Amino acid sequence: MYNLDEHTITAEFLRRIQDTPNPRIREIVASLATHLHDFAREVRLTEEEWHEGIKFLTRTGQISNDTRQEMILLSDTFGLSQLVVAQNHSRPQGLTEQTVFGPFHVEGAPKRHSHGDDISIGYPGIPLFVTGRVVDGANHTIADAVVDVWHADPEGFYDVQDPNWVSDEAKLRGVFETDEQGSFSFRTIMPTSYPIPMDGPVGDIMRATNRHPMRPAHIHFMIKKPGFDPLVTHVFVEGAAYIDSDAVFGVRSSCIGRFVRHEAGQAPDGASLNEPFYTLDYTFVLASE
Amino acid sequence: MYNLDEHTITAEFLRRIQDTPNPRIREIVASLATHLHDFAREVRLTEEEWHEGIKFLTRTGQISNDTRQEMILLSDTFGLSQLVVAQNHSRPQGLTEQTVFGPFHVEGAPKRHSHGDDISIGYPGIPLFVTGRVVDGANHTIADAVVDVWHADPEGFYDVQDPNWVSDEAKLRGVFETDEQGSFSFRTIMPTSYPIPMDGPVGDIMRATNRHPMRPAHIHFMIKKPGFDPLVTHVFVEGAAYIDSDAVFGVRSSCIGRFVRHEAGQAPDGASLNEPFYTLDYTFVLASE
Repeated sequence: MYNLDEHTITAEFLRRIQDTPNPRIREIVASLATHLHDFAREVRLTEEEWHEGIKFLTRTGQISNDTRQEMILLSDTFGLSQLVVAQNHSRPQGLTEQTVFGPFHVEGAPKRHSHGDDISIGYPGIPLFVTGRVVDGANHTIADAVVDVWHADPEGFYDVQDPNWVSDEAKLRGVFETDEQGSFSFRTIMPTSYPIPMDGPVGDIMRATNRHPMRPAHIHFMIKKPGFDPLVTHVFVEGAAYIDSDAVFGVRSSCIGRFVRHEAGQAPDGASLNEPFYTLDYTFVLASE
Repeated sequence: MYNLDEHTITAEFLRRIQDTPNPRIREIVASLATHLHDFAREVRLTEEEWHEGIKFLTRTGQISNDTRQEMILLSDTFGLSQLVVAQNHSRPQGLTEQTVFGPFHVEGAPKRHSHGDDISIGYPGIPLFVTGRVVDGANHTIADAVVDVWHADPEGFYDVQDPNWVSDEAKLRGVFETDEQGSFSFRTIMPTSYPIPMDGPVGDIMRATNRHPMRPAHIHFMIKKPGFDPLVTHVFVEGAAYIDSDAVFGVRSSCIGRFVRHEAGQAPDGASLNEPFYTLDYTFVLASE
Protein backbone atom coordinates (compact mmCIF):
# COMPACT_ATOMS: atom_id res chain seq x y z
CA MET A 1 0.00 0.00 0.00
CA TYR A 2 1.25 3.46 -0.84
CA ASN A 3 0.06 7.08 -0.93
CA LEU A 4 0.03 6.99 2.85
CA ASP A 5 -0.84 10.21 4.57
CA GLU A 6 -1.02 11.27 8.20
CA HIS A 7 -4.45 9.66 8.56
CA THR A 8 -3.82 6.28 6.91
CA ILE A 9 -0.25 5.55 7.98
CA THR A 10 -1.03 4.23 11.46
CA ALA A 11 -3.26 1.42 10.19
CA GLU A 12 -0.61 0.50 7.62
CA PHE A 13 2.11 0.44 10.31
CA LEU A 14 -0.03 -1.90 12.44
CA ARG A 15 -0.59 -4.13 9.40
CA ARG A 16 3.18 -4.32 8.82
CA ILE A 17 3.88 -5.63 12.32
CA GLN A 18 0.99 -8.09 12.48
CA ASP A 19 3.33 -11.07 12.01
CA THR A 20 5.49 -10.21 15.03
CA PRO A 21 6.15 -13.62 16.60
CA ASN A 22 6.24 -12.42 20.22
CA PRO A 23 2.78 -11.13 21.18
CA ARG A 24 4.15 -8.92 23.96
CA ILE A 25 6.55 -7.19 21.55
CA ARG A 26 3.68 -6.70 19.10
CA GLU A 27 1.52 -5.18 21.84
CA ILE A 28 4.25 -2.78 22.98
CA VAL A 29 5.32 -1.68 19.49
CA ALA A 30 1.70 -1.23 18.37
CA SER A 31 0.79 0.90 21.39
CA LEU A 32 4.00 2.93 21.17
CA ALA A 33 3.60 3.69 17.46
CA THR A 34 -0.08 4.56 17.85
CA HIS A 35 0.62 7.01 20.66
CA LEU A 36 3.60 8.47 18.79
CA HIS A 37 1.44 9.03 15.71
CA ASP A 38 -1.42 10.41 17.82
CA PHE A 39 0.99 12.84 19.46
CA ALA A 40 2.36 14.08 16.11
CA ARG A 41 -1.16 14.52 14.71
CA GLU A 42 -2.53 16.13 17.89
CA VAL A 43 0.07 18.92 17.95
CA ARG A 44 0.43 18.99 14.14
CA LEU A 45 4.17 18.54 14.55
CA THR A 46 6.16 20.48 11.95
CA GLU A 47 9.28 19.21 10.21
CA GLU A 48 11.46 21.70 12.11
CA GLU A 49 10.02 20.50 15.42
CA TRP A 50 10.46 16.87 14.37
CA HIS A 51 14.09 17.60 13.52
CA GLU A 52 14.65 19.32 16.89
CA GLY A 53 13.25 16.18 18.53
CA ILE A 54 15.57 13.92 16.52
CA LYS A 55 18.58 16.03 17.48
CA PHE A 56 17.46 16.15 21.11
CA LEU A 57 17.15 12.36 21.43
CA THR A 58 20.40 11.78 19.55
CA ARG A 59 22.26 14.14 21.90
CA THR A 60 20.61 12.44 24.89
CA GLY A 61 22.06 9.12 23.76
CA GLN A 62 25.45 10.52 22.86
CA ILE A 63 26.06 12.37 26.13
CA SER A 64 25.42 9.13 28.04
CA ASN A 65 28.41 7.02 29.04
CA ASP A 66 29.54 4.58 31.73
CA THR A 67 28.89 7.05 34.52
CA ARG A 68 26.14 9.26 33.10
CA GLN A 69 22.78 8.06 31.81
CA GLU A 70 20.93 11.02 30.33
CA MET A 71 18.17 8.85 28.80
CA ILE A 72 17.23 7.61 32.30
CA LEU A 73 17.35 11.21 33.53
CA LEU A 74 15.00 12.21 30.71
CA SER A 75 12.61 9.41 31.69
CA ASP A 76 12.91 10.43 35.35
CA THR A 77 12.11 14.10 34.70
CA PHE A 78 9.16 13.17 32.47
CA GLY A 79 7.69 11.13 35.32
CA LEU A 80 7.92 7.94 33.27
CA SER A 81 10.34 6.19 35.61
CA GLN A 82 8.22 6.79 38.70
CA LEU A 83 5.08 5.77 36.79
CA VAL A 84 6.67 2.44 35.83
CA VAL A 85 8.00 1.85 39.34
CA ALA A 86 4.60 2.64 40.89
CA GLN A 87 2.59 0.38 38.60
CA ASN A 88 4.94 -2.55 39.18
CA HIS A 89 5.34 -2.22 42.93
CA SER A 90 2.11 -1.09 44.46
CA ARG A 91 2.56 -1.79 48.15
CA PRO A 92 0.04 -2.51 50.85
CA GLN A 93 0.03 0.01 53.72
CA GLY A 94 2.97 -0.56 56.05
CA LEU A 95 5.50 -1.75 53.48
CA THR A 96 8.33 0.50 52.30
CA GLU A 97 7.59 1.80 48.84
CA GLN A 98 9.85 1.77 45.81
CA THR A 99 11.11 4.87 44.13
CA VAL A 100 13.25 5.65 41.10
CA PHE A 101 16.63 3.97 40.78
CA GLY A 102 18.35 7.06 39.38
CA PRO A 103 21.41 7.14 37.15
CA PHE A 104 24.18 7.11 39.79
CA HIS A 105 24.27 3.59 41.17
CA VAL A 106 27.58 1.78 40.71
CA GLU A 107 27.69 -1.98 40.48
CA GLY A 108 30.28 -3.40 42.84
CA ALA A 109 30.69 -0.64 45.42
CA PRO A 110 33.03 -1.64 48.29
CA LYS A 111 31.71 -4.34 50.57
CA ARG A 112 31.59 -3.24 54.18
CA HIS A 113 31.77 -6.14 56.52
CA SER A 114 31.82 -4.13 59.71
CA HIS A 115 28.80 -2.34 61.02
CA GLY A 116 29.49 1.29 61.78
CA ASP A 117 31.96 1.70 58.90
CA ASP A 118 32.44 5.26 57.72
CA ILE A 119 31.51 5.49 54.01
CA SER A 120 32.35 9.20 53.86
CA ILE A 121 36.04 8.18 53.97
CA GLY A 122 36.85 11.50 55.61
CA TYR A 123 34.96 13.69 53.14
CA PRO A 124 33.91 16.94 54.92
CA GLY A 125 30.30 17.34 56.01
CA ILE A 126 27.97 17.14 59.00
CA PRO A 127 28.36 13.68 60.56
CA LEU A 128 25.39 11.32 60.21
CA PHE A 129 25.00 7.99 61.98
CA VAL A 130 22.55 5.63 60.28
CA THR A 131 21.03 2.58 61.90
CA GLY A 132 18.70 0.46 59.84
CA ARG A 133 16.57 -2.57 60.33
CA VAL A 134 15.17 -4.83 57.62
CA VAL A 135 11.96 -6.70 58.38
CA ASP A 136 9.11 -8.40 56.57
CA GLY A 137 5.46 -7.36 56.63
CA ALA A 138 4.94 -9.26 59.90
CA ASN A 139 7.86 -7.40 61.52
CA HIS A 140 10.12 -10.45 61.50
CA THR A 141 13.77 -9.50 61.13
CA ILE A 142 15.54 -10.43 57.91
CA ALA A 143 19.16 -11.48 58.40
CA ASP A 144 21.77 -11.57 55.60
CA ALA A 145 19.93 -9.04 53.44
CA VAL A 146 22.31 -7.14 51.15
CA VAL A 147 21.99 -3.39 51.68
CA ASP A 148 23.48 -1.23 48.93
CA VAL A 149 23.78 2.44 49.91
CA TRP A 150 24.75 5.50 47.87
CA HIS A 151 24.28 9.25 48.16
CA ALA A 152 25.56 12.64 47.02
CA ASP A 153 28.10 14.84 48.78
CA PRO A 154 27.23 18.23 50.36
CA GLU A 155 27.80 19.91 46.96
CA GLY A 156 25.22 17.59 45.42
CA PHE A 157 27.58 15.41 43.44
CA TYR A 158 27.98 11.64 43.37
CA ASP A 159 31.54 10.36 43.13
CA VAL A 160 30.97 9.12 39.56
CA GLN A 161 30.21 12.68 38.43
CA ASP A 162 33.77 13.76 39.22
CA PRO A 163 35.66 13.67 35.89
CA ASN A 164 38.74 12.44 37.79
CA TRP A 165 36.84 9.62 39.49
CA VAL A 166 38.40 6.17 39.36
CA SER A 167 36.10 3.25 39.87
CA ASP A 168 37.83 1.70 42.89
CA GLU A 169 37.66 4.94 44.88
CA ALA A 170 34.06 4.81 46.01
CA LYS A 171 32.95 7.78 48.10
CA LEU A 172 29.61 7.78 49.94
CA ARG A 173 28.85 4.24 48.79
CA GLY A 174 28.93 0.87 50.43
CA VAL A 175 27.36 -2.57 50.52
CA PHE A 176 26.35 -3.99 53.92
CA GLU A 177 24.71 -7.14 55.16
CA THR A 178 22.16 -7.28 57.91
CA ASP A 179 23.07 -9.22 61.05
CA GLU A 180 20.95 -11.77 62.94
CA GLN A 181 18.77 -8.93 64.26
CA GLY A 182 18.19 -7.66 60.67
CA SER A 183 20.29 -4.63 61.49
CA PHE A 184 23.03 -2.64 59.80
CA SER A 185 24.70 0.65 60.61
CA PHE A 186 27.17 3.07 59.12
CA ARG A 187 28.58 6.54 59.50
CA THR A 188 28.46 9.10 56.71
CA ILE A 189 27.71 12.81 56.21
CA MET A 190 24.35 14.54 55.80
CA PRO A 191 22.97 14.54 52.27
CA THR A 192 21.64 17.82 50.87
CA SER A 193 19.15 18.80 48.21
CA TYR A 194 20.86 19.00 44.84
CA PRO A 195 20.11 19.74 41.19
CA ILE A 196 19.98 17.05 38.55
CA PRO A 197 22.69 17.53 35.88
CA MET A 198 21.65 20.59 33.87
CA ASP A 199 24.47 20.75 31.31
CA GLY A 200 22.85 18.35 28.82
CA PRO A 201 19.64 18.02 26.80
CA VAL A 202 17.56 17.36 29.94
CA GLY A 203 18.78 20.68 31.37
CA ASP A 204 17.67 22.41 28.17
CA ILE A 205 14.15 21.04 28.47
CA MET A 206 13.93 21.78 32.22
CA ARG A 207 14.84 25.42 31.50
CA ALA A 208 12.48 25.64 28.52
CA THR A 209 9.59 24.42 30.68
CA ASN A 210 10.54 26.66 33.60
CA ARG A 211 11.00 23.77 36.05
CA HIS A 212 13.45 23.79 38.94
CA PRO A 213 15.99 20.96 38.80
CA MET A 214 16.18 20.16 42.51
CA ARG A 215 15.85 16.86 44.29
CA PRO A 216 15.16 16.87 48.04
CA ALA A 217 18.00 15.49 50.19
CA HIS A 218 18.02 11.68 50.27
CA ILE A 219 20.06 8.52 50.61
CA HIS A 220 19.60 5.68 48.09
CA PHE A 221 19.06 2.15 49.34
CA MET A 222 18.75 -1.07 47.37
CA ILE A 223 17.95 -4.05 49.58
CA LYS A 224 17.94 -7.63 48.33
CA LYS A 225 17.15 -10.91 49.97
CA PRO A 226 16.02 -14.10 48.23
CA GLY A 227 12.30 -14.62 48.69
CA PHE A 228 11.54 -10.88 48.79
CA ASP A 229 10.83 -8.31 46.09
CA PRO A 230 14.08 -6.32 45.80
CA LEU A 231 13.54 -2.89 47.34
CA VAL A 232 14.93 0.08 45.40
CA THR A 233 14.19 3.21 47.34
CA HIS A 234 15.45 6.43 48.90
CA VAL A 235 15.15 7.69 52.45
CA PHE A 236 14.32 11.38 52.12
CA VAL A 237 15.16 13.91 54.83
CA GLU A 238 11.96 14.95 56.56
CA GLY A 239 11.39 18.68 56.07
CA ALA A 240 14.04 18.98 53.35
CA ALA A 241 13.73 21.69 50.73
CA TYR A 242 11.89 20.57 47.58
CA ILE A 243 10.33 17.56 49.33
CA ASP A 244 7.05 18.64 47.74
CA SER A 245 8.38 19.13 44.20
CA ASP A 246 11.11 16.54 43.56
CA ALA A 247 12.29 17.06 39.97
CA VAL A 248 11.93 13.31 39.32
CA PHE A 249 8.63 12.77 41.19
CA GLY A 250 10.15 10.20 43.57
CA VAL A 251 8.94 11.14 47.06
CA ARG A 252 6.60 8.73 48.90
CA SER A 253 5.43 9.22 52.48
CA SER A 254 6.73 5.79 53.43
CA CYS A 255 10.21 6.85 52.27
CA ILE A 256 10.63 9.92 54.48
CA GLY A 257 12.94 9.49 57.46
CA ARG A 258 13.51 11.54 60.59
CA PHE A 259 17.07 12.81 60.64
CA VAL A 260 17.53 13.93 64.27
CA ARG A 261 19.99 16.68 65.15
CA HIS A 262 22.24 16.28 68.22
CA GLU A 263 24.58 18.77 69.86
CA ALA A 264 28.31 18.02 70.06
CA GLY A 265 29.06 15.16 72.41
CA GLN A 266 29.10 11.40 72.38
CA ALA A 267 28.12 9.83 69.07
CA PRO A 268 26.24 6.50 68.75
CA ASP A 269 29.53 4.73 67.95
CA GLY A 270 31.07 5.98 71.20
CA ALA A 271 33.27 8.60 69.56
CA SER A 272 33.36 12.05 71.11
CA LEU A 273 32.39 14.72 68.55
CA ASN A 274 33.06 18.41 69.02
CA GLU A 275 30.47 19.39 66.39
CA PRO A 276 26.73 18.76 66.06
CA PHE A 277 25.71 15.57 64.27
CA TYR A 278 22.60 13.77 63.03
CA THR A 279 21.18 10.30 63.49
CA LEU A 280 18.73 8.37 61.35
CA ASP A 281 17.01 5.22 62.51
CA TYR A 282 14.90 3.65 59.81
CA THR A 283 13.05 0.38 59.34
CA PHE A 284 12.73 -1.06 55.84
CA VAL A 285 9.73 -3.35 55.39
CA LEU A 286 10.18 -5.75 52.46
CA ALA A 287 7.37 -7.35 50.45
CA SER A 288 7.45 -11.09 49.91
CA GLU A 289 7.96 -12.11 46.32
CA MET B 1 2.76 17.00 45.91
CA TYR B 2 4.10 13.56 46.60
CA ASN B 3 2.93 9.93 46.84
CA LEU B 4 2.45 10.02 43.09
CA ASP B 5 1.38 6.79 41.49
CA GLU B 6 0.76 5.74 37.90
CA HIS B 7 -2.68 7.36 37.95
CA THR B 8 -1.86 10.73 39.52
CA ILE B 9 1.56 11.46 38.04
CA THR B 10 0.37 12.79 34.67
CA ALA B 11 -1.69 15.61 36.20
CA GLU B 12 1.25 16.52 38.43
CA PHE B 13 3.62 16.57 35.44
CA LEU B 14 1.26 18.92 33.58
CA ARG B 15 1.05 21.15 36.67
CA ARG B 16 4.86 21.33 36.80
CA ILE B 17 5.14 22.64 33.23
CA GLN B 18 2.27 25.10 33.44
CA ASP B 19 4.64 28.09 33.62
CA THR B 20 6.41 27.22 30.36
CA PRO B 21 6.90 30.63 28.71
CA ASN B 22 6.55 29.44 25.12
CA PRO B 23 2.98 28.14 24.57
CA ARG B 24 4.02 25.92 21.65
CA ILE B 25 6.69 24.20 23.76
CA ARG B 26 4.13 23.73 26.53
CA GLU B 27 1.66 22.20 24.07
CA ILE B 28 4.23 19.80 22.62
CA VAL B 29 5.71 18.69 25.96
CA ALA B 30 2.25 18.25 27.49
CA SER B 31 0.98 16.11 24.62
CA LEU B 32 4.20 14.08 24.44
CA ALA B 33 4.25 13.34 28.18
CA THR B 34 0.55 12.46 28.23
CA HIS B 35 0.90 10.01 25.34
CA LEU B 36 4.09 8.55 26.85
CA HIS B 37 2.31 7.98 30.16
CA ASP B 38 -0.79 6.60 28.43
CA PHE B 39 1.42 4.17 26.50
CA ALA B 40 3.17 2.96 29.66
CA ARG B 41 -0.15 2.49 31.46
CA GLU B 42 -1.89 0.88 28.48
CA VAL B 43 0.68 -1.90 28.10
CA ARG B 44 1.47 -1.97 31.84
CA LEU B 45 5.15 -1.53 31.00
CA THR B 46 7.44 -3.48 33.34
CA GLU B 47 10.75 -2.21 34.69
CA GLU B 48 12.69 -4.70 32.54
CA GLU B 49 10.87 -3.49 29.42
CA TRP B 50 11.44 0.13 30.41
CA HIS B 51 15.14 -0.60 30.82
CA GLU B 52 15.30 -2.30 27.42
CA GLY B 53 13.71 0.82 25.96
CA ILE B 54 16.24 3.08 27.68
CA LYS B 55 19.12 0.97 26.38
CA PHE B 56 17.57 0.86 22.89
CA LEU B 57 17.22 4.64 22.61
CA THR B 58 20.68 5.22 24.10
CA ARG B 59 22.24 2.87 21.53
CA THR B 60 20.25 4.57 18.77
CA GLY B 61 21.83 7.89 19.72
CA GLN B 62 25.29 6.47 20.20
CA ILE B 63 25.50 4.62 16.87
CA SER B 64 24.64 7.87 15.06
CA ASN B 65 27.49 9.98 13.70
CA ASP B 66 28.26 12.43 10.91
CA THR B 67 27.29 9.95 8.22
CA ARG B 68 24.73 7.72 9.96
CA GLN B 69 21.56 8.95 11.64
CA GLU B 70 19.91 5.98 13.33
CA MET B 71 17.35 8.16 15.17
CA ILE B 72 16.00 9.40 11.82
CA LEU B 73 15.96 5.80 10.59
CA LEU B 74 13.97 4.81 13.67
CA SER B 75 11.49 7.60 12.98
CA ASP B 76 11.34 6.57 9.30
CA THR B 77 10.62 2.92 10.05
CA PHE B 78 7.96 3.83 12.62
CA GLY B 79 6.16 5.87 9.96
CA LEU B 80 6.63 9.06 11.98
CA SER B 81 8.76 10.82 9.36
CA GLN B 82 6.29 10.23 6.53
CA LEU B 83 3.41 11.24 8.81
CA VAL B 84 5.09 14.56 9.58
CA VAL B 85 5.99 15.14 5.92
CA ALA B 86 2.44 14.36 4.80
CA GLN B 87 0.72 16.62 7.31
CA ASN B 88 2.99 19.55 6.46
CA HIS B 89 2.94 19.21 2.68
CA SER B 90 -0.45 18.10 1.55
CA ARG B 91 -0.44 18.80 -2.15
CA PRO B 92 -3.26 19.53 -4.53
CA GLN B 93 -3.63 17.03 -7.37
CA GLY B 94 -1.00 17.60 -10.03
CA LEU B 95 1.83 18.77 -7.78
CA THR B 96 4.78 16.53 -6.98
CA GLU B 97 4.46 15.21 -3.44
CA GLN B 98 7.06 15.24 -0.69
CA THR B 99 8.50 12.13 0.81
CA VAL B 100 10.99 11.35 3.57
CA PHE B 101 14.40 13.03 3.50
CA GLY B 102 16.27 9.94 4.66
CA PRO B 103 19.58 9.86 6.52
CA PHE B 104 22.00 9.87 3.56
CA HIS B 105 21.93 13.40 2.19
CA VAL B 106 25.27 15.22 2.23
CA GLU B 107 25.40 18.98 2.47
CA GLY B 108 27.68 20.40 -0.18
CA ALA B 109 27.79 17.66 -2.81
CA PRO B 110 29.77 18.65 -5.93
CA LYS B 111 28.17 21.36 -8.04
CA ARG B 112 27.63 20.25 -11.63
CA HIS B 113 27.55 23.16 -13.97
CA SER B 114 27.21 21.14 -17.12
CA HIS B 115 24.07 19.34 -18.07
CA GLY B 116 24.64 15.73 -18.89
CA ASP B 117 27.45 15.31 -16.34
CA ASP B 118 28.08 11.74 -15.22
CA ILE B 119 27.59 11.50 -11.44
CA SER B 120 28.44 7.79 -11.40
CA ILE B 121 32.10 8.81 -11.97
CA GLY B 122 32.66 5.49 -13.71
CA TYR B 123 31.13 3.30 -11.01
CA PRO B 124 29.88 0.06 -12.64
CA GLY B 125 26.14 -0.32 -13.29
CA ILE B 126 23.46 -0.11 -15.97
CA PRO B 127 23.68 3.34 -17.57
CA LEU B 128 20.77 5.69 -16.86
CA PHE B 129 20.17 9.03 -18.57
CA VAL B 130 17.95 11.38 -16.60
CA THR B 131 16.24 14.45 -18.01
CA GLY B 132 14.16 16.56 -15.69
CA ARG B 133 11.99 19.61 -15.91
CA VAL B 134 10.93 21.86 -13.06
CA VAL B 135 7.64 23.74 -13.42
CA ASP B 136 5.03 25.43 -11.28
CA GLY B 137 1.39 24.40 -10.92
CA ALA B 138 0.47 26.31 -14.10
CA ASN B 139 3.18 24.44 -16.05
CA HIS B 140 5.44 27.48 -16.29
CA THR B 141 9.10 26.53 -16.37
CA ILE B 142 11.25 27.45 -13.36
CA ALA B 143 14.79 28.50 -14.28
CA ASP B 144 17.73 28.59 -11.84
CA ALA B 145 16.16 26.06 -9.48
CA VAL B 146 18.79 24.16 -7.49
CA VAL B 147 18.42 20.40 -7.97
CA ASP B 148 20.23 18.24 -5.41
CA VAL B 149 20.41 14.57 -6.42
CA TRP B 150 21.63 11.50 -4.51
CA HIS B 151 21.11 7.75 -4.76
CA ALA B 152 22.52 4.37 -3.79
CA ASP B 153 24.82 2.16 -5.84
CA PRO B 154 23.77 -1.23 -7.31
CA GLU B 155 24.74 -2.93 -4.03
CA GLY B 156 22.36 -0.60 -2.18
CA PHE B 157 24.95 1.59 -0.49
CA TYR B 158 25.35 5.34 -0.46
CA ASP B 159 28.91 6.63 -0.66
CA VAL B 160 28.78 7.86 2.96
CA GLN B 161 28.16 4.32 4.17
CA ASP B 162 31.59 3.23 2.96
CA PRO B 163 33.88 3.30 6.02
CA ASN B 164 36.69 4.56 3.79
CA TRP B 165 34.58 7.38 2.33
CA VAL B 166 36.17 10.83 2.26
CA SER B 167 33.82 13.76 2.02
CA ASP B 168 35.18 15.29 -1.17
CA GLU B 169 34.78 12.04 -3.12
CA ALA B 170 31.08 12.17 -3.82
CA LYS B 171 29.71 9.19 -5.75
CA LEU B 172 26.18 9.22 -7.19
CA ARG B 173 25.57 12.76 -5.93
CA GLY B 174 25.45 16.14 -7.55
CA VAL B 175 23.88 19.58 -7.46
CA PHE B 176 22.48 21.00 -10.72
CA GLU B 177 20.70 24.15 -11.75
CA THR B 178 17.83 24.29 -14.19
CA ASP B 179 18.35 26.24 -17.40
CA GLU B 180 16.03 28.78 -19.03
CA GLN B 181 13.70 25.95 -20.06
CA GLY B 182 13.55 24.70 -16.46
CA SER B 183 15.55 21.64 -17.50
CA PHE B 184 18.47 19.66 -16.16
CA SER B 185 20.04 16.37 -17.17
CA PHE B 186 22.68 13.94 -15.98
CA ARG B 187 24.03 10.48 -16.54
CA THR B 188 24.25 7.91 -13.75
CA ILE B 189 23.55 4.19 -13.18
CA MET B 190 20.26 2.47 -12.37
CA PRO B 191 19.32 2.46 -8.69
CA THR B 192 18.15 -0.81 -7.15
CA SER B 193 16.01 -1.81 -4.23
CA TYR B 194 18.10 -2.00 -1.07
CA PRO B 195 17.77 -2.73 2.64
CA ILE B 196 17.97 -0.04 5.28
CA PRO B 197 20.98 -0.55 7.61
CA MET B 198 20.19 -3.60 9.72
CA ASP B 199 23.29 -3.75 11.93
CA GLY B 200 22.00 -1.34 14.59
CA PRO B 201 19.05 -1.02 16.99
CA VAL B 202 16.60 -0.37 14.12
CA GLY B 203 17.64 -3.68 12.57
CA ASP B 204 16.93 -5.39 15.86
CA ILE B 205 13.39 -4.05 15.99
CA MET B 206 12.73 -4.78 12.30
CA ARG B 207 13.71 -8.42 12.89
CA ALA B 208 11.74 -8.63 16.14
CA THR B 209 8.61 -7.42 14.34
CA ASN B 210 9.20 -9.65 11.32
CA ARG B 211 9.36 -6.76 8.84
CA HIS B 212 11.45 -6.77 5.67
CA PRO B 213 14.00 -3.94 5.51
CA MET B 214 13.73 -3.15 1.80
CA ARG B 215 13.21 0.15 0.06
CA PRO B 216 12.06 0.14 -3.58
CA ALA B 217 14.64 1.53 -6.05
CA HIS B 218 14.63 5.33 -6.12
CA ILE B 219 16.61 8.50 -6.68
CA HIS B 220 16.47 11.33 -4.12
CA PHE B 221 15.78 14.87 -5.31
CA MET B 222 15.72 18.08 -3.32
CA ILE B 223 14.65 21.07 -5.41
CA LYS B 224 14.79 24.64 -4.14
CA LYS B 225 13.81 27.93 -5.70
CA PRO B 226 12.91 31.11 -3.82
CA GLY B 227 9.15 31.64 -3.84
CA PHE B 228 8.39 27.90 -3.85
CA ASP B 229 8.00 25.32 -1.08
CA PRO B 230 11.27 23.34 -1.19
CA LEU B 231 10.54 19.91 -2.64
CA VAL B 232 12.16 16.94 -0.89
CA THR B 233 11.19 13.80 -2.71
CA HIS B 234 12.25 10.58 -4.44
CA VAL B 235 11.52 9.33 -7.92
CA PHE B 236 10.73 5.64 -7.50
CA VAL B 237 11.25 3.12 -10.28
CA GLU B 238 7.86 2.08 -11.63
CA GLY B 239 7.36 -1.65 -11.11
CA ALA B 240 10.31 -1.94 -8.70
CA ALA B 241 10.32 -4.67 -6.06
CA TYR B 242 8.86 -3.57 -2.72
CA ILE B 243 7.10 -0.56 -4.27
CA ASP B 244 4.04 -1.62 -2.29
CA SER B 245 5.78 -2.11 1.05
CA ASP B 246 8.58 0.47 1.37
CA ALA B 247 10.18 -0.05 4.80
CA VAL B 248 9.90 3.69 5.47
CA PHE B 249 6.40 4.24 4.01
CA GLY B 250 7.65 6.82 1.49
CA VAL B 251 6.01 5.87 -1.85
CA ARG B 252 3.47 8.28 -3.39
CA SER B 253 1.88 7.80 -6.82
CA SER B 254 3.06 11.23 -7.90
CA CYS B 255 6.65 10.16 -7.16
CA ILE B 256 6.80 7.10 -9.41
CA GLY B 257 8.73 7.55 -12.63
CA ARG B 258 8.91 5.52 -15.84
CA PHE B 259 12.44 4.22 -16.29
CA VAL B 260 12.46 3.10 -19.95
CA ARG B 261 14.81 0.34 -21.12
CA HIS B 262 16.65 0.75 -24.43
CA GLU B 263 18.77 -1.74 -26.35
CA ALA B 264 22.44 -0.99 -27.00
CA GLY B 265 22.89 1.88 -29.44
CA GLN B 266 22.96 5.64 -29.40
CA ALA B 267 22.40 7.20 -26.00
CA PRO B 268 20.57 10.53 -25.44
CA ASP B 269 23.91 12.31 -25.01
CA GLY B 270 25.05 11.06 -28.45
CA ALA B 271 27.44 8.44 -27.10
CA SER B 272 27.32 4.96 -28.63
CA LEU B 273 26.66 2.32 -25.99
CA ASN B 274 27.28 -1.40 -26.53
CA GLU B 275 25.03 -2.38 -23.62
CA PRO B 276 21.36 -1.73 -22.83
CA PHE B 277 20.58 1.46 -20.93
CA TYR B 278 17.66 3.26 -19.34
CA THR B 279 16.19 6.73 -19.63
CA LEU B 280 14.01 8.65 -17.20
CA ASP B 281 12.18 11.81 -18.14
CA TYR B 282 10.40 13.37 -15.21
CA THR B 283 8.62 16.64 -14.51
CA PHE B 284 8.71 18.09 -11.00
CA VAL B 285 5.80 20.38 -10.19
CA LEU B 286 6.59 22.78 -7.33
CA ALA B 287 4.05 24.37 -5.01
CA SER B 288 4.19 28.12 -4.45
CA GLU B 289 5.11 29.13 -0.94
